Formats: sequence, structure tokens, C-alpha cells
Amino acid sequence: MSFPALLAADAALIQTRLNAAFAALPDLPVSHAMAYATVGGKRLRGFLVLESARMLGVAPTTSISAAAAVEALHAYSLVHDDLPAMDDDALRRGQPTVHLKWDEATAILAGDALQTLAFELLTDPALGTPESRLKLVAGLAKASGAEGMVLGQALDIAAESAASPLTLDQITALQAGKTGALIRFAAESGAILAEQNPRPLRAYATALGLAFQIADDILDVTGDATKAGKRLQKDAAAGKATFVSLLGLDAARARAKSLIEEACDHLAPYGPAAQNLIDCARFTIARES
Amino acid sequence: MSFPALLAADAALIQTRLNAAFAALPDLPVSHAMAYATVGGKRLRGFLVLESARMLGVAPTTSISAAAAVEALHAYSLVHDDLPAMDDDALRRGQPTVHLKWDEATAILAGDALQTLAFELLTDPALGTPESRLKLVAGLAKASGAEGMVLGQALDIAAESAASPLTLDQITALQAGKTGALIRFAAESGAILAEQNPRPLRAYATALGLAFQIADDILDVTGDATKAGKRLQKDAAAGKATFVSLLGLDAARARAKSLIEEACDHLAPYGPAAQNLIDCARFTIARES
Repeated sequence: MSFPALLAADAALIQTRLNAAFAALPDLPVSHAMAYATVGGKRLRGFLVLESARMLGVAPTTSISAAAAVEALHAYSLVHDDLPAMDDDALRRGQPTVHLKWDEATAILAGDALQTLAFELLTDPALGTPESRLKLVAGLAKASGAEGMVLGQALDIAAESAASPLTLDQITALQAGKTGALIRFAAESGAILAEQNPRPLRAYATALGLAFQIADDILDVTGDATKAGKRLQKDAAAGKATFVSLLGLDAARARAKSLIEEACDHLAPYGPAAQNLIDCARFTIARES
Repeated sequence: MSFPALLAADAALIQTRLNAAFAALPDLPVSHAMAYATVGGKRLRGFLVLESARMLGVAPTTSISAAAAVEALHAYSLVHDDLPAMDDDALRRGQPTVHLKWDEATAILAGDALQTLAFELLTDPALGTPESRLKLVAGLAKASGAEGMVLGQALDIAAESAASPLTLDQITALQAGKTGALIRFAAESGAILAEQNPRPLRAYATALGLAFQIADDILDVTGDATKAGKRLQKDAAAGKATFVSLLGLDAARARAKSLIEEACDHLAPYGPAAQNLIDCARFTIARES
């Protein structure tokens, strides 16, 4: 199967699992908004769960609820980041953001309930032993909270009113929380499910997450808003420092490329079984959205 | 120890556990807002965790992280409910609400991170076996999400724009989610920690939660805003149906009283060990805030 076909197949599996969860919810706007917020997107984080698990011998039938949990958590973070009080965005994955499609109260609640759903999905007995599931809960909490994604978003907001633009070290720290933490957890969760040492996957995902963010900054400057499905050039408009503004376009591209090579090197111990994760890493910097 | 002294002692234990969690967070406004949002209040839900556990032989040294988790989750729900897009409240526990003390973005993020913290606290090994901790995670998720608190808040918002006021059955369903679900989980968690049948505690807490809400509606009409530490008479101002508007003040008081007796009856199997929970039930309808 080609990489795009595999990515699409995994995304379909994840959506099916999420839809099963949404089908159990009461027929209210907040439930529909939750489902809406998970539709579309590449499901790169869910892919990392499914494929890191598969590489270590754990089938998608076992790992699927963890992949769905990671995508539910990612969707919650997008819904809240798009709110008027945060990034105030109108378009996400090519569709109106939740607070415009419904209203702010529904968007806040839908995000809240998607976070809850993420943790609920990790209690699914199909995922394995109670020990493994608890490790997933602890790992997701670490990636999500005030030491992970919330930290990154808080630093991002603080940067907007800072006297001077962030330095490269500060941007790297910000992104390690805002996008890096969940990407790292997604890749690690395969090792947790397989009860194996997570270190190589963590190292892979740390490099991958940073390359992903540099590629996002490059797309923000060079990309096509229609393909991206969201507003672009917003960092430059806001006067925010990015990897591109700090390094320049060419050096940023070179840095992303070398990070991807580094990420792939960390997968050497797994041999040919790592091919899907290697393809994913290369896709990360080649993508147009 | 008198009931008020016990309630205060348990509240102090819970705050100490929460403060230990906050101390590990980065020195940012969002971390300070999280801590601020948990200060004050009666800690009734945390008390129910500690005292239902103690009744079944589980000491606070074991149950404390579950009590702190329930209070962190409750604090998150208050921060988000107070937002301008939701109930738009300026005062909570006698202090400015988080979005006024800081700003809306910080309030959204602090609430988000408090929800995450709640789940993280439930992974604390001190709470017992992985099985018990996973049951707590699953129970908190059920109480918190689109089948629990979020459902209740969504029904409450829908009621504001409904053509006719809610009926008694509808208000009861709304409150079973909005306040009942977490109170029920708090009391049940003692049984989960003690690995005992949760049914009597669940029945106790179901009656208690409804009585609590009726008492809140009575306080909203008859209470003193200074003692309550929040805006009162807001349901009447919003033209919302409440237990008082539907039943009248006297019948509402009688209903709350009979629910408390029912709640206490469910504790009969535990004998004198249930005294703290019985005192708590009686306090629920006698309180002034």
C-alpha cells in the first residue's frame, strides 16, 4: 500500500472508532459539534499510534482506541485554540470553525467534552492490561496539560504581548509543548501498548515533532490556503517570530530535512518494520497541508 | 470533631495535595490561574471522596489524590461556566472570576489544564491497584463529559433559548448531569478505592445531589450574595425554571428534606461509620453558601 493510501486507511479506521463513541451521546448540538471537530485532517497523530504499535506487533484492532483518543485530544485543542479569545480563526480543515458553525459556548463545551472523551477512550479494555492503559492515561495527561500543550499555547499567547520576538531556543521550547508533546506521546504509545522500551520511538518523535513545526512555519509562508484549509501568513501578520523568520526559508528547509534524517536514524533498531514510520517522517516535510 | 471542623480539615488536606501539583508547574499566568481557581469553596465533593473512603476503611493518605482530582475537575467546570460566552459571571467564591482576574484566554487554558490535572491525579500509585485507578478514570470521564457535566451545561444553555420553561422532569435530568454526576462519582469513589459494592453510596449520592441542587435554587432566592460569594437571583432574572419556581419555596424545602432522609437511609448498612456522610447530607440543605 502506498503511504497516502495507508494514511487514508488509518484515518478511516480512526473515524469509525470516534463515530462509535459519538453515536452513544445524546442528540444535542454539543455532540454534533464534537463529531464535526474530528472530521477531516490528516490524522497524523493517530497514524503514529497505529503504526508505532503495528511495528511492534500490536494490531490496529488493539490500538485503535488509543489512536482515537489522541485525535480527540488534538481536535479539542484545535477547537479551543480557534476561539475568539485565543487565535480567533474562522477556517479549520477547510470548514468554518466550531464557534462560527455553532457558537462560542458550544465550542467551549465541545472542546471540554472531547478532552474528556480522549481519557475515556484510554480506559477501553481492548487496549490491554490495566497497567498499560494507566500508562497511556498518565502519558496523555502529561502531553496535554500545563507541562505540554497548554504550556505551549500559554507561551504562544505570552509571546504576542512580549516586548521582543522570541529567540530560536524559546520557539523550540514553545513548540515542544504546543505540537511536540502530543506527537511524542502518539509515537510512544505504540511502545506502551507493546510493553517495550519507548526510548527509540520517543527520540524519533522528538525530531519528527520539531521538523513538523518547521514545515508548518514554511507552509505558513509558501503554502496555498485552499490546500491547507486554514488561514495562512498569520504569524507574519501578527509579527510573531517563527523558524522561518529566524532562520530564513532555505536554512529552515535544511534544518527540517536534517531532523527527518535524524528521526529515521532512531528507527534503525527496528529494521524494515519501521518503513511506515519512515515514510511518515518524509511525508511530514513534503506535505502541502 | 464537629462537622464544620471536619469539613475544614478535609478541605485543607485537599488544598495541600493540589498545591503540591501546582508547585510542579511552570511559573506562568495559566499555572497561577489554575491554583487560584481551586482556592475557597466548601470542597464538598472532595469531602465525599475522603469520607466515603474512610467509612470503608481507606485512609485519606490513600484517597487524597482522588479527592484532589474531583476538586480540580469541579474547579475547571466553574472556570468555564463563568466565561462570558457561558454564564458570564464576575464573582466566584467571593473573588473575581478567572477571566476577569486574568483574561478569557487564560481562563479557557486554566480550565483545560485543570481537567487534564484531574485525570493525571487519578494515576497516582498511592491510590491503589491499576484496576482501581482505571475505574476512577473511567468514572470521572463518565461524570465529566457529554453524558455528565457537559450534558447538563449544554441542556442549561439550550433552556435559555427554549420557547417554554423546562418541566420538573427536564430540570431533574439537567441537574443530574450538571451537579449530580460529579457528586455521585465522588461518593462512589470511596467504594472503588475500597474495592466494595458502590451501589449504596451511589444511591446515597443520587438523592444527595438532587437535594443539593434544590438547596442551591432555594439559596438563589433567599440567600445572601456576600455569604454565597457569587451572584444570586440570576435564574429568576434569566427567566429560567428552577425547583423553586416550579414547586414553590415550601414544597422545594420539603422535597430537599425528604431527599436527605432518603439519602441517609441508604447508608443504613454501614451503621455508625456513616456518621460523617450523614452529617454532610444534613449540612447540604442547612448551608448558607
